[in-house]
Amino acid sequence: MRDVAVVGLGMTPFGELWQHSLRSLSVEAALEAMRDAGADMLDGVYLGNMAGGQFVGQEHLGPLLADHLGMRGVPVTRVESACASGGVALRSAFFEVASGASDLVLAMGVEKMNDGADATNVLATAADQETEAYHGITFPGLYAMIARAHMAEHGTTLEDLAAVSVKNHRHGARNPKAQFRQEVTLEQVMASSLVADPLRLLHCSPVSDGAAAVLLCPLDRAKEFTDRPVKIRASGMATSSMALAERRDPAFLDAVSLSGSRAYHMAGLGPADIDVAEVHDCFSIAEICVIEALCFAEQGKGGAAARTGETALGGRLPVNPSGGLKSKGHPVGATGIAQVIEIVEQLRGEAGERQVQDARIGLTQNMGGSGGSSVVHIFERV
Amino acid sequence: MRDVAVVGLGMTPFGELWQHSLRSLSVEAALEAMRDAGADMLDGVYLGNMAGGQFVGQEHLGPLLADHLGMRGVPVTRVESACASGGVALRSAFFEVASGASDLVLAMGVEKMNDGADATNVLATAADQETEAYHGITFPGLYAMIARAHMAEHGTTLEDLAAVSVKNHRHGARNPKAQFRQEVTLEQVMASSLVADPLRLLHCSPVSDGAAAVLLCPLDRAKEFTDRPVKIRASGMATSSMALAERRDPAFLDAVSLSGSRAYHMAGLGPADIDVAEVHDCFSIAEICVIEALCFAEQGKGGAAARTGETALGGRLPVNPSGGLKSKGHPVGATGIAQVIEIVEQLRGEAGERQVQDARIGLTQNMGGSGGSSVVHIFERV
Repeated sequence: MRDVAVVGLGMTPFGELWQHSLRSLSVEAALEAMRDAGADMLDGVYLGNMAGGQFVGQEHLGPLLADHLGMRGVPVTRVESACASGGVALRSAFFEVASGASDLVLAMGVEKMNDGADATNVLATAADQETEAYHGITFPGLYAMIARAHMAEHGTTLEDLAAVSVKNHRHGARNPKAQFRQEVTLEQVMASSLVADPLRLLHCSPVSDGAAAVLLCPLDRAKEFTDRPVKIRASGMATSSMALAERRDPAFLDAVSLSGSRAYHMAGLGPADIDVAEVHDCFSIAEICVIEALCFAEQGKGGAAARTGETALGGRLPVNPSGGLKSKGHPVGATGIAQVIEIVEQLRGEAGERQVQDARIGLTQNMGGSGGSSVVHIFERV
Repeated sequence: MRDVAVVGLGMTPFGELWQHSLRSLSVEAALEAMRDAGADMLDGVYLGNMAGGQFVGQEHLGPLLADHLGMRGVPVTRVESACASGGVALRSAFFEVASGASDLVLAMGVEKMNDGADATNVLATAADQETEAYHGITFPGLYAMIARAHMAEHGTTLEDLAAVSVKNHRHGARNPKAQFRQEVTLEQVMASSLVADPLRLLHCSPVSDGAAAVLLCPLDRAKEFTDRPVKIRASGMATSSMALAERRDPAFLDAVSLSGSRAYHMAGLGPADIDVAEVHDCFSIAEICVIEALCFAEQGKGGAAARTGETALGGRLPVNPSGGLKSKGHPVGATGIAQVIEIVEQLRGEAGERQVQDARIGLTQNMGGSGGSSVVHIFERV
C-alpha cells in the first residue's frame, strides 16, 4: 500500500441553512478543499450521504456533484453507512489512493436535513426496520436505553452525562463553523426538556445542514499541495448487530471497540499515543461509551472523564475540541469528514483558540445507528 | 496495484419475490458466493443498493448484512450510484484488494423493489430532482426522448428497438435465473402497450427483486479458492450531467464512452478484443446507445447490430447473453453484479445453453440514471 496524506480541507458552516441546497453545500465544500490544496483536477470523489433520497428526493448524487462542480466526467461514488457515511467515504478514498489507481481523490460528506422531511423518522431508517423502527422507537429512545444500561451497570450519573454536553459546548463556542456557539451550564443541561428519559434536549445533537471535504494524495506528492501534510496512519472499520437488543451488553459498543483495535493494530499504536480525538457524540452517552470502547477510559469510567476535565481542552486527552456533534452540529453524512478536518487542523497547528498543544497524532471515530457500524482513522503530522 | 481475481459467484433468481426480504436475498447471494469459493471468512464487503430507504424503509444495510450473514464485525460499505450501484460496488472492492489492505472482499448488490413502494417514483429520484423529476418526468420518458433523438439523428427504426428486446428475450429464455424466460416476437414487441412513445412495454426492463455477489481475492491466492479464476483487467468509471437536457447530444452517452475509454486504456485493450459483453439495457434504446459509446458499433449503427444478429449469441460479439436487464430482470442495485456473474460464467465456460465459444475476454457496463454515471469492467480468463 502507498502512504496517503490529507492535503486540502473544505467545510461549510453547519446549521439550519435554509438558503442552501444539497448541491450548493456539496460544491462549496469541495471547491474549498481543492483551493486549500491548490489542486485544479481530481481523479475521483467519494461522497458520504445518508439519506438524500428521503430528505430531499435525490439519490444518485455522483453525477450531480461532478456536474455542478464543473468537473463532468470525474468518477464520484456515494457511500452510506448512516451517520458514519463520512468516515466510510474517507476509508474508500484512502484505499483508492493507496492502491495506486488514483492520485488525487476527494473524500467528502453532505447532508441537507432541514428541508421539510421529518428528520427523526428518516434517521430511524438506520435502525433495524423490522425489530426496532417498525415498533416506533427512534434514536433518542435507543440511546436512552444505552444510557440507562450504562447507569445501571457502572453507576454513571446524570451529572456525568451533562458534563459531556457542557464540555463540548465550551469547545464549540470557540469554533466559527459550529451550529451552537454558546456555552451551557450543568444546570441548564439538567433542566432542559426531557426527550427520552434520561436524555434531555441538551444531551442531543441537532438536526443540521452542511458539507465537508478533504483532498487526499500519495504522501510522496503531498508537498506539491501543502507545507503541512498529514499522513493517514490507519483505517479500521467494523459492524455489530443492527438491533440493540441483539448485543451482549447494550452499554458496550463492540463495533467501536473492534474498529479501534483494527486501527491501532494497523498504525502500530495504542490509545496512549493519541494526542487529540474527535468521536461520535450524537448523544452525550455516546461519547462516554465510545471513549471506553477506544480504551481512552476504563470501562465504566467514561462519565468521570468528562466530569473531571480529562477530556477537555487542556486535559490529558482532549476529546471533541471542535465542539463535537453536540455543539458543532450533525449533518449526518458530513460529520465523519468534519471530524477529520478538526484533527488535521489540530495537527497542522491551525486550530486557533481550540489548539491542543503539540498535537502530533490524532484519531477520529464515526458511528452509524446505535453503534451498528463504526470507522476509526488515525492521523500523524509529518 | 496487486492483480485481483473473481473466485466465487452467488445469485438469487430475479423476479417478483414477494416471499423474500431485502435481508434474506442479500444473505442468500452472499453465502452462495462464499460457498462457491469454499471461503469461510471475509475481510470486507461492498454492497450496492440504490434505495433501500425509499423502497423498504431501510438504510444502513452494512450491519444488517454482516449480522444476518453470521459475520458480525466484518466491515460492510454500502455504495450507491442509482442503477450502477452494483458496478460501483465491484470497483470499490477491487481497489480494496488491489491496495493490499484486504484479501477476501465480497462485492455484491441487492434491491427489493416489490414491497408496496411506487417503484417508478422511487427510481425517479435518480434523475435531477430540480430540473427533471420535480416536473413529473420519469425514466421511461427520459429514455423515450433519447430514443426520439437517436431516431431523428441516425434513422434508427422501431424495428431496431424491438430487435434488441427480441434478442435479449431469446437469450434470457436460456437463463434459469431470469425473470422472464419466454421468447417474444418482433410483432409482439411492436404491438405491446405504449409506455412513453416510442417505447412500449416490451422495450422496458421490469421491476425486480434479487441479489448477486462475487468474491474477490488477490490473483496470487486465487487457486486456493477455484480452478478457474477470472482476472479483473480494468475498471473505468465516469459521470456526465445528471440532467439529460444539459448534454451536448442526448443520443450519445458520454459517461459510457469515457468509462469505456478508461477501462480500455487501463487494460491495454480495445473493443475488438472483447469476446462477450453484458451492457445496461434498462430500455432497448439504452443497449443501442451503449454499444455505440463502447465502440462495438459505429455511431448510428447500434440498432442495425441487433437487427442483423451481430450481437446475438452466435454473432460477431454477443451482447447480453444473460438476457440482459430486459429479460433477466433489473433489481437495480444487484444488476451490475449480475452482469459480472454472467461474464465470469462465460469465461469459465459454465454458461450452458448460453455459452459463447472460446470466450477469453469479457466486458460489463453498468449505468446510473439516464447515463449520468457509468462503470465498465474488463475480465480475462487466466
